[in-house]
Amino acid sequence: MDLEKLFKPNSMAVVGISKKNPLSPGRIVLLKNEFEMEVKVYGIYPTAGEIEGIQLYERLDKLPEIPDLLVIAVGPDDTLDYIQDCADLNIPAAVIIGGGFAEVGGKGKKRQEKLEKIAFKNEIAVLGPNCLGVYAPPIVDTIFLPTERITRPPKGSVALISQSGGVLVDQFFVKFNERNIGVSTAVSIGNRAVVDETMLLKYFSQVDPKTTNIAFYLEGFKEGKAKKFLQLAKESEDTVIVFFGGKTREGKVATQSHTASLAGDFKIIYDALRQNYIIQPHSERELLTCLKVYDVLSHKRNPFGKNVITFGDVAIVSVSGGHAVLASDMLKKYGLNAVRFSTREKKDLKSFMNPSAQNIASFNNPIDLTGSVLDTDIENVIRYLSDLDKIECIIMLLLPYPPNISFQIGRRIANIVLSKNKPVVCFVPYVPKYSLIIESLELANIPVFHSIKETIQAVSALKERTRVDNLKIKNFFWKERP
Amino acid sequence: MDLEKLFKPNSMAVVGISKKNPLSPGRIVLLKNEFEMEVKVYGIYPTAGEIEGIQLYERLDKLPEIPDLLVIAVGPDDTLDYIQDCADLNIPAAVIIGGGFAEVGGKGKKRQEKLEKIAFKNEIAVLGPNCLGVYAPPIVDTIFLPTERITRPPKGSVALISQSGGVLVDQFFVKFNERNIGVSTAVSIGNRAVVDETMLLKYFSQVDPKTTNIAFYLEGFKEGKAKKFLQLAKESEDTVIVFFGGKTREGKVATQSHTASLAGDFKIIYDALRQNYIIQPHSERELLTCLKVYDVLSHKRNPFGKNVITFGDVAIVSVSGGHAVLASDMLKKYGLNAVRFSTREKKDLKSFMNPSAQNIASFNNPIDLTGSVLDTDIENVIRYLSDLDKIECIIMLLLPYPPNISFQIGRRIANIVLSKNKPVVCFVPYVPKYSLIIESLELANIPVFHSIKETIQAVSALKERTRVDNLKIKNFFWKERP
Repeated sequence: MDLEKLFKPNSMAVVGISKKNPLSPGRIVLLKNEFEMEVKVYGIYPTAGEIEGIQLYERLDKLPEIPDLLVIAVGPDDTLDYIQDCADLNIPAAVIIGGGFAEVGGKGKKRQEKLEKIAFKNEIAVLGPNCLGVYAPPIVDTIFLPTERITRPPKGSVALISQSGGVLVDQFFVKFNERNIGVSTAVSIGNRAVVDETMLLKYFSQVDPKTTNIAFYLEGFKEGKAKKFLQLAKESEDTVIVFFGGKTREGKVATQSHTASLAGDFKIIYDALRQNYIIQPHSERELLTCLKVYDVLSHKRNPFGKNVITFGDVAIVSVSGGHAVLASDMLKKYGLNAVRFSTREKKDLKSFMNPSAQNIASFNNPIDLTGSVLDTDIENVIRYLSDLDKIECIIMLLLPYPPNISFQIGRRIANIVLSKNKPVVCFVPYVPKYSLIIESLELANIPVFHSIKETIQAVSALKERTRVDNLKIKNFFWKERP
Repeated sequence: MDLEKLFKPNSMAVVGISKKNPLSPGRIVLLKNEFEMEVKVYGIYPTAGEIEGIQLYERLDKLPEIPDLLVIAVGPDDTLDYIQDCADLNIPAAVIIGGGFAEVGGKGKKRQEKLEKIAFKNEIAVLGPNCLGVYAPPIVDTIFLPTERITRPPKGSVALISQSGGVLVDQFFVKFNERNIGVSTAVSIGNRAVVDETMLLKYFSQVDPKTTNIAFYLEGFKEGKAKKFLQLAKESEDTVIVFFGGKTREGKVATQSHTASLAGDFKIIYDALRQNYIIQPHSERELLTCLKVYDVLSHKRNPFGKNVITFGDVAIVSVSGGHAVLASDMLKKYGLNAVRFSTREKKDLKSFMNPSAQNIASFNNPIDLTGSVLDTDIENVIRYLSDLDKIECIIMLLLPYPPNISFQIGRRIANIVLSKNKPVVCFVPYVPKYSLIIESLELANIPVFHSIKETIQAVSALKERTRVDNLKIKNFFWKERP
């Protein structure tokens, strides 16, 4: 089944437009594609006419061309008729927004079976039912929520596939925007009657060139598809990240009325967890942290060059002792270790410091430069640590409160990182007046986080990706020598 | 020892002012109090003269009055001389900013012993050394970091005591501001040579009327003081919250060079954990969540009246199935339970819904009203749930993306809560365009959070406070009947 027309249609038609209600889903989709996206869009209305200046057509077969994509925003029985129309007219892709299928049980289940039969027989790439569909900028956007209510994420390397439209639009879009994580395409799969997570994984890892990170919110794998999913993840050159909702008993009960995911499937999920090719964050926030760091480093100039984090050996540099303590507290949980410095190394580090900080700073790991720190102290310490092979990554806890830290400090750190290529992940408080510092680091693609926990998680996420990448190479090697 | 003069001085003097360096700590403290705070402030400089229009005095005994507070920003040996001056001149309180005491070991330890001797003998309330001191608006602010670099928190019910100045200014001040949590007084205790967490707990719970919540960041209790601390917490009418840094082996190593807290003390901490009068968040973020909900509900008009959360029996109302699943996943971990609805109750709930949502919404707990929801559906459901005694709290996951939710929805929910007094805690995405909704809830003192996790944590924090309050009452009862 070819998914290309779902994400890159030249033309699309929308059915289910109301002339009376400007907030009807079909009308919102028609207008947002006409006014905001690049696809050529046609509206279908039984008596034709026009709406907000857009000409409408009575039926699909009256359109000036056969569209690549049909967006269906009508009741469930009419929906089936339109899917039959797709088959008859050779429309290769459809998005079904409405519910009333498997998720309501009984009659709905039968409807969904009928839908599947037509779609598979005629190779129609159907998304949904019960979904928001596709956001594939700059071409097409079938999300029936008014654009002005949504926060669109920036462009980037991440393909997002979500079993929940709400999670896609809120947990992903809003928080991607906050964190400046870039999206290539977003897909809400709803009941995934036809197009499912496995087909999408294949498409994004094998076909779509803009995507290098593929992230899933799932409430369970589609029945019988978990193995294939794992196989595709294993073979993918992209990084595959899956976050599961409904892991607890309470959550599972909730999924029953949401996406009707089978509880039995959860055994397969846990098996998948044991596999090693998929990155599995423990929380939504950790998912965001993974994606931020993978997006920054995979798509753009990578300031760390070929340096990766294999063992998790870090140095923590702070200007606040308390922050150093809080960061140290989290290391073990995230599989990281504070490297020990030799007496010689401590002496060297001390020798760089300005006289007022020299005797109060401490040079164990964590290094606490104290509030008497100068820019040059930070520079000297980072430069020195960058040359120590035993350190894989520097965690820089950068509080710009001490009076002698200048607002140039971000640029100064960036310059060292860009010349030394040692991985550095920074914490800078999220305060508008510090954006000069944050932006100068981000311009150099150095990941910046605004909580100590996310900073530590980010380093852990880089280590995890190294592990997965190594396993994939090993796996490939095996195939070469049977 | 009377701490009043630390927080409510009529006059203060500052030593350690540089005429050359506008960023010297003493000079920053002098100027910020002169220009931003209410206390009468004097500067000491060996050759007198003036600085930025402020007259300076040669020595403390040349001042026109004996100040209530002395801020000392000089080297460690000179510091001891100034503490002796406090004794000689009857200055009742001092803040020592500089380091060079117990935290550097050896000679520094001896200095600290000398300091303690003078202070305790003469009853001088000394804060520090190695600290930021006091922020007690609108009277005094001894934080030597430039005010324009700091984010000051709003006014409120929380007294903050931190063993780390960096944690106080960054983890507390910045994040309090983000979350709109209000502070009465903030104290950085540094090495706590004289004034320690136990004395401060006593002051804030027994003397200061503006404080109803007392929060601590500690890396360990001061030796020999843990028992007294627990006793005071038990007797306090205020809510006492302690978050410990340096709990892991790695963190403990870091505390050694930071505040030289004794590792042996940790046993006492764990004993304290077993006590039941102190609220112990598991993470910094959970600490913030506790404080937000306690601040909102303890200081102002309480929209929940006398209703408390005892058993953790909740109803979840969502407009996104995925959010409902994610929230349900967290309930058990936070000691909460989704109440079961009877068939009758489900039928009632369904009967309120608009026709397009009626057949796709689901009325288990979580309740998913779907994207077809109207304002009136949300109102009817909340009103109905408010009348069910078996529900202690409604968790409202409010995504304003569905086209038919109006921006009046916050006010509408608030009106119901204010008339029914059923506890309602809301999740609303943190997006500037939704501030109309967020603010209308917050105006009614209904707690609003911007992540699902914090929303669940907030309900759990309310349950935890009920438990502690109940224990204190029981404890009191015991005392009545020996």
